[in-house]
Amino acid sequence: MNDEFYMDLAIKKAWQFLVLTYPNPAVGCVILDENGRILSIKAHKKAGFLHAEPLAILFALFSKNGEILSEFLRLYNQFFNTNFKNQNELENADLDAKFSYDFILKNHSNLLKNATAYVTLEPCAHQGKTPPCANLFVALKFKSVIISQSDLNKIASGGAKILKDAGIAVKMGVLNDEGKKLLEPFVSWQSGNFSFFKLAISKNGVATGGIISNLKSRTHAHELRGVLDLLIIGGNSVRTDRPRLDARLANAKAPDVLIYSKRDDFDKTIPLFNVPNRGVKISNSLCNLNAKLIMYEGGENLLKEMINHKISNLKWLLIYQSSQFKTGRNVMLDFSLNPLFQSKIDDGIYGWYELC
Amino acid sequence: MNDEFYMDLAIKKAWQFLVLTYPNPAVGCVILDENGRILSIKAHKKAGFLHAEPLAILFALFSKNGEILSEFLRLYNQFFNTNFKNQNELENADLDAKFSYDFILKNHSNLLKNATAYVTLEPCAHQGKTPPCANLFVALKFKSVIISQSDLNKIASGGAKILKDAGIAVKMGVLNDEGKKLLEPFVSWQSGNFSFFKLAISKNGVATGGIISNLKSRTHAHELRGVLDLLIIGGNSVRTDRPRLDARLANAKAPDVLIYSKRDDFDKTIPLFNVPNRGVKISNSLCNLNAKLIMYEGGENLLKEMINHKISNLKWLLIYQSSQFKTGRNVMLDFSLNPLFQSKIDDGIYGWYELC
Repeated sequence: MNDEFYMDLAIKKAWQFLVLTYPNPAVGCVILDENGRILSIKAHKKAGFLHAEPLAILFALFSKNGEILSEFLRLYNQFFNTNFKNQNELENADLDAKFSYDFILKNHSNLLKNATAYVTLEPCAHQGKTPPCANLFVALKFKSVIISQSDLNKIASGGAKILKDAGIAVKMGVLNDEGKKLLEPFVSWQSGNFSFFKLAISKNGVATGGIISNLKSRTHAHELRGVLDLLIIGGNSVRTDRPRLDARLANAKAPDVLIYSKRDDFDKTIPLFNVPNRGVKISNSLCNLNAKLIMYEGGENLLKEMINHKISNLKWLLIYQSSQFKTGRNVMLDFSLNPLFQSKIDDGIYGWYELC
Repeated sequence: MNDEFYMDLAIKKAWQFLVLTYPNPAVGCVILDENGRILSIKAHKKAGFLHAEPLAILFALFSKNGEILSEFLRLYNQFFNTNFKNQNELENADLDAKFSYDFILKNHSNLLKNATAYVTLEPCAHQGKTPPCANLFVALKFKSVIISQSDLNKIASGGAKILKDAGIAVKMGVLNDEGKKLLEPFVSWQSGNFSFFKLAISKNGVATGGIISNLKSRTHAHELRGVLDLLIIGGNSVRTDRPRLDARLANAKAPDVLIYSKRDDFDKTIPLFNVPNRGVKISNSLCNLNAKLIMYEGGENLLKEMINHKISNLKWLLIYQSSQFKTGRNVMLDFSLNPLFQSKIDDGIYGWYELC
């Protein structure tokens, strides 16, 4: 299989955590051993969590030698007084970056000597809580690092140079267009803001009449709400649906809400007004929002206004689509989308789309 | 990565050719070298074409040694007076099975010694135009063959025994449920018939108002038409759309058509009546169809009748869905689907679904 095959695995993995990594970029990493066997396919999941590269390296080591996993579990549980029992539990945990990084340096036993990494974004050269990711590849004596996008961030860039200076073969620009698209939200919120519209519809296009999307889709939406700067919803939806708009399915903080409405005479017993630690604003303007990551929620009316009047810099849609046909009228709008990423989510699908 | 990861690659590859292999089963095969590197991911594409296993083995050899590809091109072009220039052209060709099989036996140079194969269906033990696929793994000294489904076909079964008797490690039942679902159409048409309904809708559920799905989707539908025993269409669609219902986009034979209608006073200048070498029947009964592979095409009315009255043994739907929102009324029905396979197809998606 060629470089594109492995980079595609890394990119698809990263898409699963798109926006959830805010304010960090979504990054995926695939590690092959010296013989080309896939050892791990990982992605950065959330700001504060391990970067894609050390996570992939850690799991690659577990895959090479089960005793390294046992040792990691033993030391980690001892040090942090946790009770992780297996690889699966580690996978979804907020592992301490410094501990994990040091563990890798002490326990790699040259098992990844001459290994290859595929990374969607140039490994960072940035000394933060941990040393740069690029240094990790050098310390473990990787043979080659294949990269889709170079890092334009001034603080973090320079990783490719570190790798090359250490004699690692570096190839840039593999699946360049796909890698660039994956990075677009990050680039947007770094230089201004990134806005997307979330829509849930049945297979035959119905958005109304009770819950449309499955629990996993709604949990994903709550995870997104948990990282937003601002959630914008149309006044009609608030009046009709009386929503709470919190992030309870993800055990996360409810986002601040802007109700886009000309009138401000809302019934304040509507649940969204009574969520602790949340700001609510009512406004008929979408200018000067002072938020870098914004999700619009709503139905046909708000979406129509967004698209027809281009009242914001809305570029992307997130669509959850169930596998049910429902008797009901569809969202009756007229526009074309370019699918960027689509994935099964339990018995439905969801996808990120850009407006054509 | 575990066995399930590689079997999933084989299963997904096979789904791409579902039904197109009629009357053969859809089968996928992944080959890893002795170190676990992926060498090829292939599927059986069409009856008469190479089985998944020799195709995957052939391309695995090309991947191990580029000179084997050059030699294959040279000998094949010489023998059959063809002009294949590269691997891509071979990939989509109807390669001669006997020639390819013999070439593998003569040129493998033990390059796949200790290799591993993942096959969605037990390799055949059937001496047809070529020796059994199982023998090929034995001759090339594979270390292990991982299988999802055992072959219940009396003529072809026994492959696992051949492998085991030769000392190859055999593991059965990996991704058993997924492998079984992939095989369901084959099992159905072997014991009676397999019927599915083809529907094309926009992202918001509109099935009317001109062409809905993209060219690649329509070409796929024509490829399907090319292998059908019978295409069934509702009388209303014939009157309204005046279709041709041939398989021109796939350069294939137009299928026989049954128009499901109470009245038989059709305008015989409607193109479907004037396609050479095609039978057309008009009937208000869907009993005793004497066809093993049947596709229903139509819109809301026919689908409604099929689902509400269960007038046939319809179990699966094939849905092409564009990424466009269209102003128009949606297909307004009420039923649930279980997605079996969904895939991007240019700027749209398509999927196989079973009725819940």
